[in-house]
Amino acid sequence: MINVLFAARPERWTTYEQPLRDALAKAGVEANLAVDLPPEEVDYIVYAPNSDLQDFTPYTRAKAVLNLWAGVENITGNKTLSIPLARMVDPGLTKGMVEWVTGHVMRYHLGIDTDILRSDAQWQPRTPPLAQERSVVILGLGALGAAVAHTLIGLGFEVSGWSRSAKSIEGVTCYSGDAGLTQALSRAEIAVLLLPDTPATENTLNADTLAAMPRGAFIINPGRGPLIDDDALLTALNTGQIAHATLDVFRIEPLPQDHPYWAHPQVTVTPHIAAETRASTASEAIVENIRRGEAGEPYLNLVDRSLGY
Amino acid sequence: MINVLFAARPERWTTYEQPLRDALAKAGVEANLAVDLPPEEVDYIVYAPNSDLQDFTPYTRAKAVLNLWAGVENITGNKTLSIPLARMVDPGLTKGMVEWVTGHVMRYHLGIDTDILRSDAQWQPRTPPLAQERSVVILGLGALGAAVAHTLIGLGFEVSGWSRSAKSIEGVTCYSGDAGLTQALSRAEIAVLLLPDTPATENTLNADTLAAMPRGAFIINPGRGPLIDDDALLTALNTGQIAHATLDVFRIEPLPQDHPYWAHPQVTVTPHIAAETRASTASEAIVENIRRGEAGEPYLNLVDRSLGY
Repeated sequence: MINVLFAARPERWTTYEQPLRDALAKAGVEANLAVDLPPEEVDYIVYAPNSDLQDFTPYTRAKAVLNLWAGVENITGNKTLSIPLARMVDPGLTKGMVEWVTGHVMRYHLGIDTDILRSDAQWQPRTPPLAQERSVVILGLGALGAAVAHTLIGLGFEVSGWSRSAKSIEGVTCYSGDAGLTQALSRAEIAVLLLPDTPATENTLNADTLAAMPRGAFIINPGRGPLIDDDALLTALNTGQIAHATLDVFRIEPLPQDHPYWAHPQVTVTPHIAAETRASTASEAIVENIRRGEAGEPYLNLVDRSLGY
Repeated sequence: MINVLFAARPERWTTYEQPLRDALAKAGVEANLAVDLPPEEVDYIVYAPNSDLQDFTPYTRAKAVLNLWAGVENITGNKTLSIPLARMVDPGLTKGMVEWVTGHVMRYHLGIDTDILRSDAQWQPRTPPLAQERSVVILGLGALGAAVAHTLIGLGFEVSGWSRSAKSIEGVTCYSGDAGLTQALSRAEIAVLLLPDTPATENTLNADTLAAMPRGAFIINPGRGPLIDDDALLTALNTGQIAHATLDVFRIEPLPQDHPYWAHPQVTVTPHIAAETRASTASEAIVENIRRGEAGEPYLNLVDRSLGY
């Protein structure tokens, strides 16, 4: 019997206790899982960087720290931590992102809002183009962008992609570099933003690049808030250059109640839900690392603390 | 050079002229396409049963009539028609149906209406289940039902199906018969209706079968209006047994302006748009038959007039 300490905010325990117990049982790992254990008896620490536990010194027997977050920037500098640290790579997060983007692409593709919002009882048939006649451009071709591209291709869409450095994905017309960005956006009836947040990607969508898109285009941003120049987007919405935007991420979150995005009829705000870790699949990832530790197998997704990721 | 007569209502010519010309050029078929040609010079007739042309006797040279509609019940009894008659089988119609159903399944799966309709600027994150944790049941496993099932499985959903007589589709848990209907519906978080309209399928969803569904289920009907007992559905919506319904087909179309579906907050009405023939793909199907006629190959989708279909 091993001892597993859950060290995160109390509301996380509510979410994770049962999925972790289920995952332990499913993997056949016998463990005493608790939020309060004598430090010197703990074998593994399931950890969120914002928990009260910041001094790892008393955990003399612990074999590994298993992070609940993908991000480890708030823990790699901790000098008291010398045992292996694994970051969260949740297959459910990628699946959830693909599903969220697919839902909003289909919504724009079919014009579903027209039906949801109709209040005049008018019977007005329309025939949207088929997916094969609809051009979707994905900005950012990392793991998430590639997964989204794969699913949209499976649904029949004409998919292009853009990344800063050249990439190649089967079935995707790939663009890169500054000139490539304008080329890619010029065919974006629907643009999906999945770029990382770096100084080079800030304001990727600005007055100039928004003007390069086809008139009446749609924007979906599940990536990062700073990718969009908000004032430029609001102007483009007001002129009709951009028909509608669905935004999941913002420079300030929660999005302040007086931000014009909330009330704008051409904007749908979603509360940072596209990239969610799922307790069920994340618990399975954590338990797999405990199983590996006990079996003497190498841990998955180990952090190299000299590199910081 | 062959002569192709387009015999349908004038508004159809507006829709079809360019797609037909494009399809002829793409197939390398040189043709004189027009709405007015001397009958004795016509080689092929692109035809809608509600056109003015009802007497085929003067078309002495014509080789085939290529119907713009899937339905041929208004033409098979025409005694003046003795040359081959092909009905429309449009691959675009199936694709369009799959896309329409996928869009509304994703919308319910993700709870997108909450975000579209929000007016209180409240930031309220939620984590929907993954598709793999969402059970969708398709009633009707013909060509359209099977195509929808295939796409939803590709997106990760747990898909079941029901048909009157037993069927088997890979990846789909299949039910059949009266007892099977209750079993299938008991797991339908989302039910999609794609049954044909026959005396046996009328009111498939009624007070009893709606009560068999999980509380808070969603219904999507792109099939036929009479599949649903409308009064029973309205009652189930009002009690919360059914959370929401998206209906594309009705017993009377256009749906009368005073019908309670229009104003009901838990109903989305769409104007019979899920199963639309697409001019581009339908034109390619017609031109393929002209090409076959000129090459001496057998026509596709020929109607057997002794059977009437």
